[in-house]
Amino acid sequence: MQNQKKEKVRVVNLMVGGPEELIPWDLVVAHRQEPWVAVDKGAVRLVKMGMVPDYALGDFDSSTKEEEKAVVKAVGRVRTFPPEPKDYTDTQLGIKAVLDHFDFEQVNLWGATGGRIDHFLNNLFLPLIAPFDQVLTRLCIIDRGNVVRYYQPGNYAIKKLPSMKYLAFVNLTAVKDMTLIDEKYTRLVQHWDSQVPVSWASNEFVGDVNHFSLGSGIVAVIQSRDVSADHSGQPE
Amino acid sequence: MQNQKKEKVRVVNLMVGGPEELIPWDLVVAHRQEPWVAVDKGAVRLVKMGMVPDYALGDFDSSTKEEEKAVVKAVGRVRTFPPEPKDYTDTQLGIKAVLDHFDFEQVNLWGATGGRIDHFLNNLFLPLIAPFDQVLTRLCIIDRGNVVRYYQPGNYAIKKLPSMKYLAFVNLTAVKDMTLIDEKYTRLVQHWDSQVPVSWASNEFVGDVNHFSLGSGIVAVIQSRDVSADHSGQPE
Repeated sequence: MQNQKKEKVRVVNLMVGGPEELIPWDLVVAHRQEPWVAVDKGAVRLVKMGMVPDYALGDFDSSTKEEEKAVVKAVGRVRTFPPEPKDYTDTQLGIKAVLDHFDFEQVNLWGATGGRIDHFLNNLFLPLIAPFDQVLTRLCIIDRGNVVRYYQPGNYAIKKLPSMKYLAFVNLTAVKDMTLIDEKYTRLVQHWDSQVPVSWASNEFVGDVNHFSLGSGIVAVIQSRDVSADHSGQPE
Repeated sequence: MQNQKKEKVRVVNLMVGGPEELIPWDLVVAHRQEPWVAVDKGAVRLVKMGMVPDYALGDFDSSTKEEEKAVVKAVGRVRTFPPEPKDYTDTQLGIKAVLDHFDFEQVNLWGATGGRIDHFLNNLFLPLIAPFDQVLTRLCIIDRGNVVRYYQPGNYAIKKLPSMKYLAFVNLTAVKDMTLIDEKYTRLVQHWDSQVPVSWASNEFVGDVNHFSLGSGIVAVIQSRDVSADHSGQPE
């Protein structure tokens, strides 16, 4: 794929096969004019929603033959992989396809949370290793209650997403000199070093933009809200 | 609490306030004869199930006054905390209560997965820092589709849980010399070193007991199954 001309876009979307009930379908539909790559059950559910992905791939081992046929019919050409042994996960294969076909500023990953914890952690840790580290600063994991972005060492301004309430800083690797500057709670994270990951959860914005700095390591910044089954996905 | 005599038990259970639909209630009920500690919304839901926890605590900021009263009436005495600022999460307060009151071999943590990712990661990473590291090898996080345990350097035999299908090894910290010995897939994790966390997902047991070894760092071992909304929690 190296020699093929890539399509230049601002945002590309990747749908994978995590639990359907955690996917914010209103937001997915709002992104329908952008390009989509979909893997396996992610392709099946997009096609069912009447959204035909630009590229579909997968082994379809968790789909019926009928579902697989519907995807092939809608998309035209589907790259299939044998179910096992494979060295890459569905999400990794999807990111590879995104990198093959697009020159992009941001990749939104949908259907990547909930369900099996090993799957979720594989998705969360995906941009920490090559060749997926090239999407680290461009990857955005989205579900009904959470938006996750990744940060390398530097000084950052984080903008509040209107629909979210909480703000969290999670070092995914060892870090040095991590400092929260102007959030609601800053006292415990001042020039902070750690060898182990810690989720500094339940912080909140003061105003619409807050700042943090990082000397070394990788930090995930998570904006979230409470989504209860009782509240039909509305923020509480 | 240091001078008070602790109750000696094999297993103690801790219920916290994560999404209700991920809690395997049949299993919770099967543990009803064991001691329970419950925090906040976790106490509310246990009392609603007719299971009165031995100790209840929390700020009850996400519960109604009526729910809080029901807990106080059932449990008798409830330790309350002001909603904020607080330096400990609900789960951390619960583990502190468990350590205060019990001398135990295993602590099962329920209601700790799903929902807000910052909450879940805080629970997952909890035993990596003092004083909670004293429960590292005794902590077991349980939901409908996942069971998580933690391992320090050493040589281990992992026993298959009959209800689970998949096996995953996730280094939560930098690790050295991690080796999978006799699982279905072992090729990629042989004397493996890593500075960043990786979820080696979707492995499977060969037989009922498999082995792994670790030179340094902390590894979570996750047994899981697919639980879809369509299948009423039955393993697929």
